[in-house]
Amino acid sequence: MSEPWHSCIDDELQLVEDLMDRDLQSDNPELSEMCRYVVGAGGKRLRPSICILSYYACGGTDPEKPAKIGAGFEIIHSATLVHDDINDQGEVRRGRKTLHREYTISKAIIAGDFMFAMGFRLLASAAPQIVDYIVEASASMGAGEFIQKDFEHRASVTEDDYLRIIVDKTGKLFEASARSGAAVAGAEAAHMEAVGEYALGLGTAFQIVDDTLDVTGDPHKTGKAVGTDMIEGKPTLPVIYAMEDPVVGPSIREIFEKEVPTMDDVHRALELIQRTDAVDRCLAKASAMVDSIISALDPLPASKYKDALLDLAGYVVRRER
Amino acid sequence: MSEPWHSCIDDELQLVEDLMDRDLQSDNPELSEMCRYVVGAGGKRLRPSICILSYYACGGTDPEKPAKIGAGFEIIHSATLVHDDINDQGEVRRGRKTLHREYTISKAIIAGDFMFAMGFRLLASAAPQIVDYIVEASASMGAGEFIQKDFEHRASVTEDDYLRIIVDKTGKLFEASARSGAAVAGAEAAHMEAVGEYALGLGTAFQIVDDTLDVTGDPHKTGKAVGTDMIEGKPTLPVIYAMEDPVVGPSIREIFEKEVPTMDDVHRALELIQRTDAVDRCLAKASAMVDSIISALDPLPASKYKDALLDLAGYVVRRER
Repeated sequence: MSEPWHSCIDDELQLVEDLMDRDLQSDNPELSEMCRYVVGAGGKRLRPSICILSYYACGGTDPEKPAKIGAGFEIIHSATLVHDDINDQGEVRRGRKTLHREYTISKAIIAGDFMFAMGFRLLASAAPQIVDYIVEASASMGAGEFIQKDFEHRASVTEDDYLRIIVDKTGKLFEASARSGAAVAGAEAAHMEAVGEYALGLGTAFQIVDDTLDVTGDPHKTGKAVGTDMIEGKPTLPVIYAMEDPVVGPSIREIFEKEVPTMDDVHRALELIQRTDAVDRCLAKASAMVDSIISALDPLPASKYKDALLDLAGYVVRRER
Repeated sequence: MSEPWHSCIDDELQLVEDLMDRDLQSDNPELSEMCRYVVGAGGKRLRPSICILSYYACGGTDPEKPAKIGAGFEIIHSATLVHDDINDQGEVRRGRKTLHREYTISKAIIAGDFMFAMGFRLLASAAPQIVDYIVEASASMGAGEFIQKDFEHRASVTEDDYLRIIVDKTGKLFEASARSGAAVAGAEAAHMEAVGEYALGLGTAFQIVDDTLDVTGDPHKTGKAVGTDMIEGKPTLPVIYAMEDPVVGPSIREIFEKEVPTMDDVHRALELIQRTDAVDRCLAKASAMVDSIISALDPLPASKYKDALLDLAGYVVRRER
């Protein structure tokens, strides 16, 4: 069996953990504890991985630099999850209570703001030239989240609307992680473009798979209940595709448009979605996206880090969470 | 009658307004509208003023630079107000509904995050060397707000606890505004320290006066109801002093410790506070603080901008809001 995609950067990923632990300290013990609660819950550390792999694939040699930047990106990503969970009234994340359920909404809003600031600090201290990437990505995440809210429970949402939302919400931060890694490696323009394009597509494909798992995933593996997005009326690709189905589409639309669906509604919608080709279409879409970004990496010279980026792309579409 | 303290920078303050208007644009019309709702509600623009005056007082000559940075600080300050209002369940700010009451809590959380990112962007693009100041201040604001929450309805809170909270919550952002202005003016170290010390003290004095107005202010002038802090059990200096009163102190403590005081409780507490010397002590404290920071400016050469900083200090303790 081949090595997992991250085996060549396991030391750097450990450094990311140490840096997050060190930097998310505050004079207030509870605030520090809340930050640890969030980043300590694990996660795939995809953004740090993309940053570190892009750095090495573009010729960088110092493990500290991309680890610091990767930690900054992961902290900012975690901050957005905290605020998103409040907005979505999420109860469970990564198999445990969301931060605002474990503490309070007020404290979770503040902790999220604190984590944003600490993430920015880490990034700015590591490499002032990448601040632009992260603020652009943060602004996009806000805009994407906002537009997504506008489409909640609205069956008129299209695939294009969805793609625009997830590019903003997820793709841009992936892209910023890659570009930042490349920038501090002193990458030439063509290589910077290569990893940027790759990561934007990867983030988008990742989100499609994530949204598909919400209708098919095994809660024991995913750490969260299936159908959460449906309860919230969140516009996701499997639902959009399923609503196009000539037979069961109209019934799914009806449930999707209910402001407060019952659990019976949600289970029925999930069951109806399984009768359509929506899940297959979603996975095919994500696979096609991954295929197209793999060629984006052509300009990069051969290296084990480039290989790892290629493996990572395959992992993203095959994962069960 | 003498000119108001801001008359020598009125053009720059107009530039701040224009920049905020220009930079708080998003592809989403509602998000742009929400940002305009917040910054368009006015406010004293103290942070941009301190930034601009510090810049000129330290020898700067280009109006664009400090205006850009000042706009960034005002946007970040506005973002914190949006999140604070959610946390404090505030209904009214600057005479109109708070953002989350006019829209929704979810959208207001996102809009706050978006404003943070846009503020950081403006600052980082204007002067990358000041990013550190703003992230430190943002982290402090989070920590201060957090600690404040811990002392809600707790009559054991001391004057020292309070001072630590408001230095973090308000003082540090004032200080960062001044230091940033000085830094981009290329100020020498002694001048940078001078405006930094001045602004930290000014912010702290400002917050004491603000908290005192909550128990004495005229709602027609202040744009918000009196006693709001008391309802929330927020630890403020007038309440801390009043709770020390040998006669009425115990009754005030009792009301302050109620998790959900009635409006009768709050009115009674406000009335009891008036029978103590708490308000006079607060204003004396703020005045003494302002006196001490005025001498902090001694190292600066004479200029109309230095004079304006001195006038501004007087304004802060005399204002009715």
